[in-house]
Amino acid sequence: MFDAVLGIDPGLSRCGYGVVRRAGSSLVPVAFGVLRTPPELDLPERLALLADDLDDLLDEVRPAAVAVERVLFQVNARTAIAVGMASGLALAAAARRSIPVTHYSPNEVKLAVTGHGGAEKGQVQSMVARLCGLDAPPKPPDAADALALAVCHLWAARITTAAGAADAAGVGGPDGLGRAVAAALAREANR
Amino acid sequence: MFDAVLGIDPGLSRCGYGVVRRAGSSLVPVAFGVLRTPPELDLPERLALLADDLDDLLDEVRPAAVAVERVLFQVNARTAIAVGMASGLALAAAARRSIPVTHYSPNEVKLAVTGHGGAEKGQVQSMVARLCGLDAPPKPPDAADALALAVCHLWAARITTAAGAADAAGVGGPDGLGRAVAAALAREANR
Repeated sequence: MFDAVLGIDPGLSRCGYGVVRRAGSSLVPVAFGVLRTPPELDLPERLALLADDLDDLLDEVRPAAVAVERVLFQVNARTAIAVGMASGLALAAAARRSIPVTHYSPNEVKLAVTGHGGAEKGQVQSMVARLCGLDAPPKPPDAADALALAVCHLWAARITTAAGAADAAGVGGPDGLGRAVAAALAREANR
Repeated sequence: MFDAVLGIDPGLSRCGYGVVRRAGSSLVPVAFGVLRTPPELDLPERLALLADDLDDLLDEVRPAAVAVERVLFQVNARTAIAVGMASGLALAAAARRSIPVTHYSPNEVKLAVTGHGGAEKGQVQSMVARLCGLDAPPKPPDAADALALAVCHLWAARITTAAGAADAAGVGGPDGLGRAVAAALAREANR
């Protein structure tokens, strides 16, 4: 599926995924959902199930790129390690298929999708729905977060070019990226 | 390789492994070493390399059981997440092959190998060398730690039985396990 980006919001109980591709100037949500592992299973079995599901997903979607949410260090350490393990499986599964993988922090996703890094989760989800032409934010939230990652990655590719052009025109500067994001989003909203 | 236990001391730069099997009442170190990934590669590539190496190791050794060191929560969070990712790959790789995996904390390993949970790293390594009939502690330390995990798992199986017998004979109590470990080690040392 040429041009499709797979976003992954890693987690052991719920691992969100969202596939978005470009169609001209539109963003099309191809698929989204959540991979779950039963909490009553032991950790190794849960990780094995998740690894199998991630392999199946990658083989089915064959994304051009994968975007994975970066694990935060400031959260509860036990949770961070479980999320880190899930994230590690996703990164390894993509890289084993030679699919380029990018890590984005939650703030980078918020910035790319809404134009500011301190946006509320609800704003991000509404904006994702709007950009993807959905009537309502996708559910569960893990799926919406994964779609936001895919959208972020598609924007980032565009923004890098836009920021480069702005810099070349002398209107870039240290906030060139942020301005380019805002400009790109304004254009998109007014389409 | 019937009866062989594979110990894994997870890490991204250096992932120690050690294979130990029983031969009568002796412990035989079958193989040990370190899987490395180059720090100059990106995280996804490093994880993919490690996942490939772990798969190869498991397919070659075909252990009856795998023992993986539990990631500590109190260490530096960034390191903990990298180690957690490596650990997650090891747990998933074993469970995907339906090989039983057990997690041991560093203190459990120290207790099983030396008889007390607060042992120094050097004491653990000397004891591992002695139990495995090696002239000197194996190097690098990650390999020695992995052998210690395998030894710990082999002891744990034996100790569970011994502690059960002690409990049944009314000599167990809350410290039954610790006493059984000490008794088993004393027997081993006097062989």
